[in-house]
Amino acid sequence: MSKKYLKKSMHAPDFLCEASEYNNSFSRGIKVGFGGIAILFISGTASINEKGITYCPDNFSGQVKRVYDNITALLQSEGADWNDVIKTRCYLKDMKYYKEFNDYRNGFYREKKLNPFPASVAIQATLCRPDLLIEIEATAILRNPKED
Amino acid sequence: MSKKYLKKSMHAPDFLCEASEYNNSFSRGIKVGFGGIAILFISGTASINEKGITYCPDNFSGQVKRVYDNITALLQSEGADWNDVIKTRCYLKDMKYYKEFNDYRNGFYREKKLNPFPASVAIQATLCRPDLLIEIEATAILRNPKED
Amino acid sequence: MSKKYLKKSMHAPDFLCEASEYNNSFSRGIKVGFGGIAILFISGTASINEKGITYCPDNFSGQVKRVYDNITALLQSEGADWNDVIKTRCYLKDMKYYKEFNDYRNGFYREKKLNPFPASVAIQATLCRPDLLIEIEATAILRNPKED
Repeated sequence: MSKKYLKKSMHAPDFLCEASEYNNSFSRGIKVGFGGIAILFISGTASINEKGITYCPDNFSGQVKRVYDNITALLQSEGADWNDVIKTRCYLKDMKYYKEFNDYRNGFYREKKLNPFPASVAIQATLCRPDLLIEIEATAILRNPKED
Repeated sequence: MSKKYLKKSMHAPDFLCEASEYNNSFSRGIKVGFGGIAILFISGTASINEKGITYCPDNFSGQVKRVYDNITALLQSEGADWNDVIKTRCYLKDMKYYKEFNDYRNGFYREKKLNPFPASVAIQATLCRPDLLIEIEATAILRNPKED
Repeated sequence: MSKKYLKKSMHAPDFLCEASEYNNSFSRGIKVGFGGIAILFISGTASINEKGITYCPDNFSGQVKRVYDNITALLQSEGADWNDVIKTRCYLKDMKYYKEFNDYRNGFYREKKLNPFPASVAIQATLCRPDLLIEIEATAILRNPKED
């Protein structure tokens, strides 16, 4: 049995700056690899831009799209895509956005032909900035494409 | 080192319909298997019935029982049981239900003779439907009984 | 491929009593081991002391330190440290504490020279006791130092 074990941070600088750039100590995501498998633990990802500024403040339809784009970029940085996502946790600032969130997700997942859909949970939660309306965590598992 | 890797959705149609039946894009649970181990990622599971309708709306004692029954059914669909659960996340609509939740869980776990108890967290959170009072996510790990 | 699989509860009695001592059915953490890897699933950990009593009730600066100390003790009980943590979930009773939380975490992680930082999410959430202001879940992955 190999003792090989990988841990590295994930980065998508064209979409999200490093959290450390605004004095915050977390990685956008962590990749761990062992036994030919890689697991991507993607941090709570909100609608921020490559400078760390809130994208579309107080605008749900703009924010939900940005959140999915940000996570997509993080997945792609490790050669993964939404078909590798096995779990999401979705935080909405107000449950009044739940239908719009669902409608967006339905379209996004069907466009990507996800099968099966990831497991998921969605709750209402106040987020770290008052102008953020949605934040999503995601976990993906993939065959480790490269033995880093 | 085997590159074998399994991902499939979980189903317990006698207890919970598919979320897609009410226009929602998530799986009730995802099973992943690798290296002789299977991990079950069970979605946030609330008190709903096999038609997707809230079971015991606004009735905590009815809902907490249904949530555990729903998760039990999902575990059983993959040959697992509560002894395989290593983590739960419990969301209560109001922390005033915490004692009743705890009393139910104490009895349920002791009846099943769980040892050790799963790791856990419990927070108050507004859920996706106004009449839902409790929702639980669970993660289980088991030796993969069948190499699917 | 070994079928070996370990599951055990984690304990740090000098810092936190067992939850069962106050009639609660969860483990402070669960360690699972397979394939030469151990994963530590640490429960939502609040500012409580070795007798299960809230430490520094309603005092954020005291509580945040205690939470990190409690988790450190749980990690150490399995020969792990913060460099092994790959994900945290942070619950603040009020987002007004976010800056103080961040400042503490920045200092704590930098003192421990964490690289990379764990993935993370932080939301506001009402916790199980009214005098608790912060609770953190953590997941760590390490090479299994001893084949238990």
